[in-house]
Amino acid sequence: MNRAAVVNPTSSHAPELLAHSWFNTDRPVLLAGLRGRVVVLVAFQVLCANSVSCGIPQARRIHETFSPEDVTVLGLHATFEHHAAFNPAVLKAFIHEYRLEFPIGIDQPQDASPIPHTMERYKMRGTPSLVLIDSLGYVRKHTFGPVDDLRLGAEIGALVQESAAIARHSAA
Amino acid sequence: MNRAAVVNPTSSHAPELLAHSWFNTDRPVLLAGLRGRVVVLVAFQVLCANSVSCGIPQARRIHETFSPEDVTVLGLHATFEHHAAFNPAVLKAFIHEYRLEFPIGIDQPQDASPIPHTMERYKMRGTPSLVLIDSLGYVRKHTFGPVDDLRLGAEIGALVQESAAIARHSAA
Amino acid sequence: MNRAAVVNPTSSHAPELLAHSWFNTDRPVLLAGLRGRVVVLVAFQVLCANSVSCGIPQARRIHETFSPEDVTVLGLHATFEHHAAFNPAVLKAFIHEYRLEFPIGIDQPQDASPIPHTMERYKMRGTPSLVLIDSLGYVRKHTFGPVDDLRLGAEIGALVQESAAIARHSAA
Amino acid sequence: MNRAAVVNPTSSHAPELLAHSWFNTDRPVLLAGLRGRVVVLVAFQVLCANSVSCGIPQARRIHETFSPEDVTVLGLHATFEHHAAFNPAVLKAFIHEYRLEFPIGIDQPQDASPIPHTMERYKMRGTPSLVLIDSLGYVRKHTFGPVDDLRLGAEIGALVQESAAIARHSAA
Repeated sequence: MNRAAVVNPTSSHAPELLAHSWFNTDRPVLLAGLRGRVVVLVAFQVLCANSVSCGIPQARRIHETFSPEDVTVLGLHATFEHHAAFNPAVLKAFIHEYRLEFPIGIDQPQDASPIPHTMERYKMRGTPSLVLIDSLGYVRKHTFGPVDDLRLGAEIGALVQESAAIARHSAA
Repeated sequence: MNRAAVVNPTSSHAPELLAHSWFNTDRPVLLAGLRGRVVVLVAFQVLCANSVSCGIPQARRIHETFSPEDVTVLGLHATFEHHAAFNPAVLKAFIHEYRLEFPIGIDQPQDASPIPHTMERYKMRGTPSLVLIDSLGYVRKHTFGPVDDLRLGAEIGALVQESAAIARHSAA
Repeated sequence: MNRAAVVNPTSSHAPELLAHSWFNTDRPVLLAGLRGRVVVLVAFQVLCANSVSCGIPQARRIHETFSPEDVTVLGLHATFEHHAAFNPAVLKAFIHEYRLEFPIGIDQPQDASPIPHTMERYKMRGTPSLVLIDSLGYVRKHTFGPVDDLRLGAEIGALVQESAAIARHSAA
Repeated sequence: MNRAAVVNPTSSHAPELLAHSWFNTDRPVLLAGLRGRVVVLVAFQVLCANSVSCGIPQARRIHETFSPEDVTVLGLHATFEHHAAFNPAVLKAFIHEYRLEFPIGIDQPQDASPIPHTMERYKMRGTPSLVLIDSLGYVRKHTFGPVDDLRLGAEIGALVQESAAIARHSAA
């Protein structure tokens, strides 16, 4: 039986996050601490129209739909434009106004480039970008721009199911 | 490790369909012939506003998102209101106008009740109703009214992943 | 001062309606009886996807937004396709399900053509079509397909204002 | 003949604007310089979710729908919350990202209150607020929160029609 998979097969290992000024969490978030969970990483900018109309509302829906034990949503403010306009107080006000409850950090700026560290490591093309990381830390989806809810839901659901099977197998 | 499942556990066996005048298929569809696939059964009526605005567009999105080898979408016209207004030519025109490509049958009417056979077997509360049936023929979700794309996608994705695991296990 | 008008200038006199089986009214509606009011004529078909998703909801919004003394909304079922599937019982069920409260008639069929009488008189290109008729009985807008709410609102508002001015002038 | 008006009757004279750091205009905008035109004043904040999802897109639609000779759209950034997060560079980036082309100024802050000057003069309740000012400088609508396109369009259309009649009368 040759069945098409709902989610892409393993590609590469997800680079670690390098971010500061985290909100909605007591301490900086590292992917290394999230093994065993599916992670949805949403890179955005407060002053990016598609981030505000699509990326952020979808991140919030994912956070509200799944148990955080199964699926952890992380926001990353990848400031690569409008550097003069941005500061952590802008992000703080945004998080308050949009009632975001998942952890959100600011991507670490680089001295020699307008592109911040994590954005460069992931070779993101802009904002919003979404990265789906499985329970073993591998990238299973990486997109730029709007993402369809039904398809994304199916991919997340398949990864949760997969990670539960892995957990059972490890325990056996 | 005690993990919340994305999709509900097995409840009961899905009753067989009893329908006539099928469109988009050479012969009547039976669930018995679809073992090994996830089935999304969408009960609707052409003259039901929520069916037309929510149920049918979502059924079409599911049909377009998944491989039919993985997920088979079935439409069932469950005529329980406006009997005088409905006839197969209405459904035929509707399928043409809304460009529906998945198999659609008309639920078998009963002599002694306005509720047709399959609708009664499933104890559906109205239209649109959605039933999610796993690859072994068990009902895993049964809802009346609008359904969220992200959550439904996750449930379908988990069932596809599960059925692939079952298929691998059977083959081993 | 040379100011662009919000609504198109008078073009031609609106042909009279020729329809039967009216709903939501005690007697057939004639434009001749509606002088002094702005009329919004919406031609649609129950089995036309754009009529159901755009034309009919907009007609209902117009009916709910304006006083019928100012703006009278009329529906016309212009059956030019799927003749075998349509009958007055289908329209009756549709009006019930979509909770339409404005007068709706069925365009009079012609023997020698699939195009019904009123549709032909107006040279409508299909459904949904919208015709905006001023208080003196002249056509001020005639479109096929989706219509923007803001622009249409402005045109209706300008016509109501214009007709009030005409009424005051006549009374003086 | 006693006809309901589409737009509210004249209430009070519109207070003058007091704003700085204007964008999309060579010099500060004063209502006194806009007599003869209908003015739509939209007060908003970049870090207000309803401003971004409703108020600003509607302002842009109005700007795109009407001739600026007829209807002038003005944006006013009424900073009454998140003062620490806001500066003109944030607004500049926002205007660029959302491709706004109508004049936008920053409401003049007050020393003794978090409410800026113009917002206080108009007794606005928050953002987004919309004020509709007729060609003689009177307030005809003043709302807080989302506004329906069809009804707002009708009110603007009626005011444009009214102002054209006034202009003709003045010229006669």
